[in-house]
Amino acid sequence: MAVYTEVSDEALCAFLADYPLGELRAFRGIAEGVENSNYALKTTEGDYILTLYEKRVDPTELPWFLGLMQHLVARGLSAPMPVAGRDGVALRELAGRPAAICTFLPGVWPRRVRPEHCGPLGAALAELHLAGTDYTAVRPNGLGVASWAPLLERCRADGESVQAGLIAELDAELAGILAGWPKAGTLPSGQIHADLFPDNVFFLEDGGAPRVSGLIDFYFACTDLLAYDVAVCLNAWCFEPDRSFNVTKARSLLREYSARRPLSAEERAALPALCRGAALRFLLTRLYDWVNTPKGAMVTRKDPLEYLYKLRFFAQATGPESIGA
Amino acid sequence: MAVYTEVSDEALCAFLADYPLGELRAFRGIAEGVENSNYALKTTEGDYILTLYEKRVDPTELPWFLGLMQHLVARGLSAPMPVAGRDGVALRELAGRPAAICTFLPGVWPRRVRPEHCGPLGAALAELHLAGTDYTAVRPNGLGVASWAPLLERCRADGESVQAGLIAELDAELAGILAGWPKAGTLPSGQIHADLFPDNVFFLEDGGAPRVSGLIDFYFACTDLLAYDVAVCLNAWCFEPDRSFNVTKARSLLREYSARRPLSAEERAALPALCRGAALRFLLTRLYDWVNTPKGAMVTRKDPLEYLYKLRFFAQATGPESIGA
Repeated sequence: MAVYTEVSDEALCAFLADYPLGELRAFRGIAEGVENSNYALKTTEGDYILTLYEKRVDPTELPWFLGLMQHLVARGLSAPMPVAGRDGVALRELAGRPAAICTFLPGVWPRRVRPEHCGPLGAALAELHLAGTDYTAVRPNGLGVASWAPLLERCRADGESVQAGLIAELDAELAGILAGWPKAGTLPSGQIHADLFPDNVFFLEDGGAPRVSGLIDFYFACTDLLAYDVAVCLNAWCFEPDRSFNVTKARSLLREYSARRPLSAEERAALPALCRGAALRFLLTRLYDWVNTPKGAMVTRKDPLEYLYKLRFFAQATGPESIGA
Repeated sequence: MAVYTEVSDEALCAFLADYPLGELRAFRGIAEGVENSNYALKTTEGDYILTLYEKRVDPTELPWFLGLMQHLVARGLSAPMPVAGRDGVALRELAGRPAAICTFLPGVWPRRVRPEHCGPLGAALAELHLAGTDYTAVRPNGLGVASWAPLLERCRADGESVQAGLIAELDAELAGILAGWPKAGTLPSGQIHADLFPDNVFFLEDGGAPRVSGLIDFYFACTDLLAYDVAVCLNAWCFEPDRSFNVTKARSLLREYSARRPLSAEERAALPALCRGAALRFLLTRLYDWVNTPKGAMVTRKDPLEYLYKLRFFAQATGPESIGA
């Protein structure tokens, strides 16, 4: 849940005076997004989202994130556009936090993913990767493959309390993932979203098939293997609530992705290993949060074991065909 | 925090098909309001709020609440207007919960109350009371004076853990309040909001003095003494963060209220006792929630002791003048 930082009306009015956005009409906290405080902001000029960046986001990285969003919007992607103040600066400060106003995107994120969502998702992911190619500033992936061994170490003491034998299983999985990971330079890299879960993708239907109306929450974006972003989406979009892998969803996602940015033979071959790595990444961060979230904290802890089943599924994949590639 | 019930996109689309509201454009959970799940809903027709009524609201009472809101809006008050479906019915069902769509109200609730808010608040409260006079259906106040003794009993076992001596002090306060409470029939009663805290009142400033743009959250509304609603507002709006009572705020509130609905001599004389009762009411419900909220629950517990200081202040009031009346 969100809204950690309360903003006084005086502070808000003073903040808005630095923007060419007209008069304030409404200001409501949004219950979505767990990392930052988000407010729906309505002015006489239109609808916006005001974000206050909380402690999980490193303020020195915000120019990279906001620059990426501006770049992607300029290339035609439907992403939140950071709005510059009258002095041309988009990253500002409010209530003692770094803060930015972005354009509001229409759409609804799918609470239950249907196969019809996965094709448009794959297309949007490819368009994101293509639009990012000429954003040249590099941001290493702080939650990439090199981070998983130290992250597992930090879960070692308490992880067994979540499930007996879990840490030994993750040690073995991590060894397998590292052994099968693509060698540096063999796969194309670029700007990836790295967290493109269903609640970060808005759709509109208008009586027909769903179409993507916006991608949001670029605060895990980084420079890493493009096919790893596809692997994150296969984890996040293609499992059913009963833990089964829906290969129809995966095929739709991959078909529409490849129609815009064809996967090379090397990327396709690496996809099961990348999926296994992505499953471990989300398992580890959820496990870390699970064992380190104080009881009573106002945060929803996500079940790490959901990703244990995904990890096992991808570990057993016999080749790209078995995951729809 | 809010949003307890998730709504699937299919269920939402089916639900909206029963309304003449055009196509869905956006749907975002709102982080405000603790009793129900609220969503900001945007359609091609405009902005709305979708509310799913959670377990604290008795479904059999919803027609009374929605009927009151419709009545008040028809009398010109700026309150959420329940929108009827194509069949003329406003109270419907979604995701297994009673649900209604209401019009969206512009404005921002004051995070920090200034004296300039209190006059417009008093005026709006009087207008609410006047607009409610010909809504004749009665809803007894379930958290009125008769409920306080049983509520205190339910806090007796655990209340001492919050502060030593608290229960004995509340026993004495309750006895004093009951002894000084206005006799039935001596003060005018009618439809009251009963929970008109700052987060339920929206203001717009537009460069000038704040004006009330909307009153929301009528789900504690009931039929009780009109002056008791004034007493609730004196509790909720006229204390500073340092616990001092700001008599300038109280005078503004009462002056603008009385300009629209003059307080009788009996109401004015009863105001200190009503304020003391209102302080006890919020203290008791907060205390009950405090000792009965499981650790780790996703609910913000409000500090009951804030109201102990208000209770003591009103208990020592020497007359209506000392509270600005």
